Amino acid sequence: MIKARITVTLKNGVLDPQGKAIASALATLDFKDVAGVRQGKVFDIQLDHSDRARAETELADMCQKLLANTVIEDYAVEIV
Amino acid sequence: MIKARITVTLKNGVLDPQGKAIASALATLDFKDVAGVRQGKVFDIQLDHSDRARAETELADMCQKLLANTVIEDYAVEIV
Repeated sequence: MIKARITVTLKNGVLDPQGKAIASALATLDFKDVAGVRQGKVFDIQLDHSDRARAETELADMCQKLLANTVIEDYAVEIV
Repeated sequence: MIKARITVTLKNGVLDPQGKAIASALATLDFKDVAGVRQGKVFDIQLDHSDRARAETELADMCQKLLANTVIEDYAVEIV
């Protein structure tokens, strides 16, 4: 069994309205030191084999095809 | 300036319909080795001071008050 974490975040320069909304909500809750918030996604994926190299290829392929919009998002694959 | 990453994930045992939907979509795309998928959120937060101890307290407080539903979610704070 292989366990991996995929983190998908917006590319630098891409506007993050969700992050902005969170930042202003935090300000409303009196968190005055917040200079910026950007939100992303994590996917914890289990694969039922133990071939690391194959897993890395599969996971990158999953990002390309489904988990990330590679036009505006970056992804990072980490095998735990 | 302090940069931190907060990762919010569902607690073990909490049903993850989104993760299930992603797993079945991956199966449709011919990824046959996927044993499970669980989705979470990441928040990249910038604080405009450099006091690490204060940042850790603030960030945990942000999770408790806004970023995580601590009934069903866990959070991890990482100062980068």
